Amino acid sequence: MPAKPVNPDLQKERSTATFNPREFSVLWAGGEERFKEKKALEKLFLEDPALQDDLPISYLSHKELYEHSLRKACIIGEKIRKLRADGEDGVDTYNALLGGSLGSAILKEGNPLALHYVMFVPTIMGQGTMDQQVEWLSKAWDCEIIGTYAQTELGHGTFLRGLETRADYDASTQEFVINTPSLSAYKWWPGGLGHTANHAVVVAQLYTKGEFRGLAPFIVQLRDSDTHRPMPGIDIGDIGTKLGMKGVNNGYLGLKNVRVPLNNMLMKNQQVLPDGTYVAPKNSVLTYGTMMFVRCALIRDTAQSLAKASTIATRYSAVRRQSPIDPNQPEPQIMDHTTQQLKLFPQIAKAIVFKTTGDGIWNMYNVISGEIEQGNLDRLPEMHALSCCLKAICSADAAAGVETCRLSCGGHGYMDCSNFPTIYGMTTAVCTYEGENTVMLLQTARYLVKVYGQALNGEKLVPTVSYISDAINQTKFVNFDGSLRSIVKAFQFVAANKTRIAYEQIELRRKQGYGTEVAANLCGTFLTAAADLHGRAFLAQTAYTELLALSREVSPELAEVLKVVLELYLVDACLNRIGDFLRFIDLTDQDVTKLEVRLENCLKRFRPNAVSLVDSFDLHDRVLDSALGAYDGNVYEHIFESTKKNPLNKEPVNGAFHKYLKPFMKAHL
Amino acid sequence: MPAKPVNPDLQKERSTATFNPREFSVLWAGGEERFKEKKALEKLFLEDPALQDDLPISYLSHKELYEHSLRKACIIGEKIRKLRADGEDGVDTYNALLGGSLGSAILKEGNPLALHYVMFVPTIMGQGTMDQQVEWLSKAWDCEIIGTYAQTELGHGTFLRGLETRADYDASTQEFVINTPSLSAYKWWPGGLGHTANHAVVVAQLYTKGEFRGLAPFIVQLRDSDTHRPMPGIDIGDIGTKLGMKGVNNGYLGLKNVRVPLNNMLMKNQQVLPDGTYVAPKNSVLTYGTMMFVRCALIRDTAQSLAKASTIATRYSAVRRQSPIDPNQPEPQIMDHTTQQLKLFPQIAKAIVFKTTGDGIWNMYNVISGEIEQGNLDRLPEMHALSCCLKAICSADAAAGVETCRLSCGGHGYMDCSNFPTIYGMTTAVCTYEGENTVMLLQTARYLVKVYGQALNGEKLVPTVSYISDAINQTKFVNFDGSLRSIVKAFQFVAANKTRIAYEQIELRRKQGYGTEVAANLCGTFLTAAADLHGRAFLAQTAYTELLALSREVSPELAEVLKVVLELYLVDACLNRIGDFLRFIDLTDQDVTKLEVRLENCLKRFRPNAVSLVDSFDLHDRVLDSALGAYDGNVYEHIFESTKKNPLNKEPVNGAFHKYLKPFMKAHL
Ligand SMILES: Cc1cc2nc3c(=O)[nH]c(=O)nc-3n(C[C@H](O)[C@H](O)[C@H](O)COP(=O)(O)OP(=O)(O)OC[C@H]3O[C@@H](n4cnc5c(N)ncnc54)[C@H](O)[C@@H]3O)c2cc1C
Ligand SMILES: Cc1cc2nc3c(=O)[nH]c(=O)nc-3n(C[C@H](O)[C@H](O)[C@H](O)COP(=O)(O)OP(=O)(O)OC[C@H]3O[C@@H](n4cnc5c(N)ncnc54)[C@H](O)[C@@H]3O)c2cc1C
Repeated sequence: MPAKPVNPDLQKERSTATFNPREFSVLWAGGEERFKEKKALEKLFLEDPALQDDLPISYLSHKELYEHSLRKACIIGEKIRKLRADGEDGVDTYNALLGGSLGSAILKEGNPLALHYVMFVPTIMGQGTMDQQVEWLSKAWDCEIIGTYAQTELGHGTFLRGLETRADYDASTQEFVINTPSLSAYKWWPGGLGHTANHAVVVAQLYTKGEFRGLAPFIVQLRDSDTHRPMPGIDIGDIGTKLGMKGVNNGYLGLKNVRVPLNNMLMKNQQVLPDGTYVAPKNSVLTYGTMMFVRCALIRDTAQSLAKASTIATRYSAVRRQSPIDPNQPEPQIMDHTTQQLKLFPQIAKAIVFKTTGDGIWNMYNVISGEIEQGNLDRLPEMHALSCCLKAICSADAAAGVETCRLSCGGHGYMDCSNFPTIYGMTTAVCTYEGENTVMLLQTARYLVKVYGQALNGEKLVPTVSYISDAINQTKFVNFDGSLRSIVKAFQFVAANKTRIAYEQIELRRKQGYGTEVAANLCGTFLTAAADLHGRAFLAQTAYTELLALSREVSPELAEVLKVVLELYLVDACLNRIGDFLRFIDLTDQDVTKLEVRLENCLKRFRPNAVSLVDSFDLHDRVLDSALGAYDGNVYEHIFESTKKNPLNKEPVNGAFHKYLKPFMKAHL
Repeated sequence: MPAKPVNPDLQKERSTATFNPREFSVLWAGGEERFKEKKALEKLFLEDPALQDDLPISYLSHKELYEHSLRKACIIGEKIRKLRADGEDGVDTYNALLGGSLGSAILKEGNPLALHYVMFVPTIMGQGTMDQQVEWLSKAWDCEIIGTYAQTELGHGTFLRGLETRADYDASTQEFVINTPSLSAYKWWPGGLGHTANHAVVVAQLYTKGEFRGLAPFIVQLRDSDTHRPMPGIDIGDIGTKLGMKGVNNGYLGLKNVRVPLNNMLMKNQQVLPDGTYVAPKNSVLTYGTMMFVRCALIRDTAQSLAKASTIATRYSAVRRQSPIDPNQPEPQIMDHTTQQLKLFPQIAKAIVFKTTGDGIWNMYNVISGEIEQGNLDRLPEMHALSCCLKAICSADAAAGVETCRLSCGGHGYMDCSNFPTIYGMTTAVCTYEGENTVMLLQTARYLVKVYGQALNGEKLVPTVSYISDAINQTKFVNFDGSLRSIVKAFQFVAANKTRIAYEQIELRRKQGYGTEVAANLCGTFLTAAADLHGRAFLAQTAYTELLALSREVSPELAEVLKVVLELYLVDACLNRIGDFLRFIDLTDQDVTKLEVRLENCLKRFRPNAVSLVDSFDLHDRVLDSALGAYDGNVYEHIFESTKKNPLNKEPVNGAFHKYLKPFMKAHL
């Protein structure tokens, strides 16, 4: 409930909305039950005074921020313990608190214990034997030990097979001897590794009986459980300040002849016997599963980033007045400048479409991983390809969208009190971790090119790529009538043609004598372009199917709004790739103008509900943490309040004046 | 001179370059003399131990950073004093130290005294009468007083006429009474205003004899010259932490019945007589001059940002090895992945083209401002239009380019020790200040649409827009043969058509009954698109003319390299707007593929000289301040060194373990 009266411009926007935001809020939360759970969790966590900040954390030094973050992380941990004891925890709670909005309301620069919950525990569950789970899991669940997941090294992130950390099995003592043989072998980046975790799953190259066996995960104790001092042979610390995720305590780790018992290797998939005999994994497919799982989750996170940023910018744009349109009229809300609408509304639409797609692909993941468990791997490559390109597209678009929103707030967006800098830092990080975006697109493209070859051979393709066969059979796209359905179809046609070109270019290079891999590298930019279009065609298709389906289930008022969202999304997406459309489909200058006028028209129809749409994302003021985006819209007051907290302003004259400035100014007097 | 041996991969790149980087360095610096001056200044400033940091500033709190910045700013100020005393100061020195690279090597988050030199002093020079200059300038030059320029308010940045700060003339005391009548009237943003300046030029709405007269600048004393305490009626402080420019001490200012003498209004252009009679300015054109001047300078700054970012990313990409291309070969330098080349090389080319264009437009500015001083205003609107859109395009492209470079370094680009976060903060700020980019594009577009109407009437157009008449007379673009010249011509044709469409759309809306201004707003996105293409056509044309001219003056080896730069720039620029090309020019799918293959080919030809090209930007290691971009390429060592400076790593166990983590972990034991 807002403490101050709501800004009248915002109030006006809310009172003229054509739909009931609560209806959409409930949908967005995943149903009435989830909505209530969300509210209850918010109450439990956000009203706890111990979890509130007096001083905006942007004023803290790196060291202070770490200490601050650890304090809060422990309070959250304690609350999670209580919830578990009461049987009230669950995946959604963990998601909300560790990756989601609620967590970011408490620790907006990230939680140094997060990796313990989201990587250390799950890795033991996924890769430990039953015995190992018994040994480690209860300690880990109870946080008697704190772990992290140490994979990336200073010298290697993308190319895991290049990792240098090695574990040599010593049968005489039944121990592994783990080493980082060079500086570039140092583990680098794992969250919480710096000063927080006392254990880690360390990924290393396994050698037994003097032979190389491939990568394996080892549980390594890093710090003494009482004193927290680094164990012998462990060189450990925090990697330093970063663009974002500033509270996560990303760390480095050097290991020098660190010995761990045989049983510390996680052995569900592969085993080392006491004598050093190596038993290889049956199936390397399972590791794909976790990666897909994480990527699907990330797609939803990108939707959340866009929801936050667009809420802030849209509310601000309803309150900010600047630059008369008609010189005889007063200054309008900046949201009435058409250029401003084109900055904001597509981000709102994207938030909705990414969320919908994220949910859809989540369900698809569950279906497919059920199939996989029953030994049916048919849809794995398809799903893998899709999750890769969607992760890349959604994170890149979300990061760009956050910046567009920030810039749309003029100078004030540049202040930390807008919260845009933090949101950007969190969002752009997704472009790099869990598979660097270019690498992701190349993985998808590799699949597409293979599938294209199959299609040429007349093989039947799986659902998400079947449009490629269609396009091969239909060399010309006919009847682009501008309907939403035809935009979706056209997207697929264009995507298929991008894949065709990538395929043809690789073939051409091969005929010129290059090997397949070298040819593929030469054609890298053709490949990434094809993967980009594949993902965008899927997004268009999903938006079309899901939003139309949804609009049949909701009130007519909300249905109308969703249709505008869909149309705006599709027309904007099409115009953003208009070069590809014009390249493969016969469109005239007038057709394009028509689409552009239609975009303008979509913006106009979107305008009356813009504020209520972002309201219905139902983001708590603490989640937004933005002077520009608060629910009450008292923008200037909030900016001023935040400025008053600035430690520099606690004294009228800063000490540096006497020390430096005065002597300098008076030097010549 | 590098202390450590240069990384062999970098060494190899340098030894295989086909041109002499020094030749280009000298050109880049503006000739042999300038090059030497630059080196001398670097020596004078960068070898001074007082200007070196032990601790990377990212570890400082906001308050500490301010104090640190002020200390160094005073040392720089003292050195400038000495240079002046020796007659060795000059525009270039000020540029280098306050806006340029050298300054950023010392104070990379900006200088709290910068606005004193670049805005306060010049405003007095430009807008003060001779008497006023005598009164204020020597004090200001000697830094006996420190000033800033306070224009933007919490409620108004873009729309200056909306400023609320007012100055009422009181003839009885011959004083102005200055007030910020509301919170939104508070001055907000001026650099150095927070705790540094003791004077400011305050822009306010002038009222004399009870009548409104428009905006006027007033010199206001903010703080006591001895104690530095705020003067009566002055509410002042630092606005708080920001995305970037963290050391600039941007401030806020409230004024309550602050009285300043009549003579404190700067009266070169307009006057108030003692009795309150107002004498209006003859010509409001002069203020355009300063704005154009600043924008032209900003274009060069964006080139510098790109030069920095691309140097860091290119060197890193020569040293970093990741992901075998051919599975039987070792991991390549990542610069050998074609997708990586497409991230890096266009940024290098853009740096060169923006610099060339910046220099060109600087000369044009000087010619035109000479004409203006002789009363000839003919080319003012043209120049204004050009400076607006180029400021917008170059800043937006540079900011995006910096991020592309950062992302191209994978995870390590995300660390502050890469220096990308700071470079981005500085660069993206340019999108907002000195005319918000969208507003800039709309100003250009307004001019273009007007000119289009003139062209339709058969009037002769000025040089930079004459291509519009050409396009009107030639409705179809013929003979796109892919030559560089035809790409430039095509850019102009496309730009003219974008203007045509904007013009037609506005006319259409007017026929539908909208007033001109409302119609223009509705067509906002058509207008910005037209301005964008106008600027890009100009960049293409300038790149073509200037780089070809240059390549006739230099050694054949360098000439070859410059031609590759030019071709890469043009082909890439064309493909980035390929939708517009396809829309207005008859190109087939095969034509586009040809361009794409050509792009790949340009990258390949660029590759051998990439490192030497960025070397020849000749950016001192202190300017780059990047563990990833140092000249010696010892990337991992530099990262590790920077991490060792992290205050968190000074103690093996952080205090927060005992305070928070241990009690939490042991709670259940
Ligand atoms: C905020 C953040 C948090 C992180 N947290 C963790 C963590 O908790 N645990 C952990 O283990 N790691 C973590 N990481 C590391 C992360 O997983 C890696 O940064 C990521 O995998 C990318 O790898 P890289 O940094 O080696 O990039 P690189 O692979 O070095 O990429 C550099 C460039 O090379 C290009 N490139 C690489 N391979 C290819 C190829 N095959 N084809 C074409 N181009 C290629 C890339 O596209 C990129 O442009 C984190 C990183 C960040 C930024
Ligand atoms: C780092 C930094 C340093 C600064 N330093 C100084 C300084 O030293 N001194 C000083 O006086 N100021 C300074 N400023 C303020 C700066 O000049 C303003 O932020 C800038 O002029 C933009 O104005 P605004 O913030 O009011 O944006 P707004 O005008 O409020 O812009 C918000 C949105 O409205 C849109 N909009 C506004 N007008 C129109 C229009 N006519 N048509 C279409 N869209 C429109 C914009 O495109 C934007 O999307 C600084 C700002 C920054 C970020």
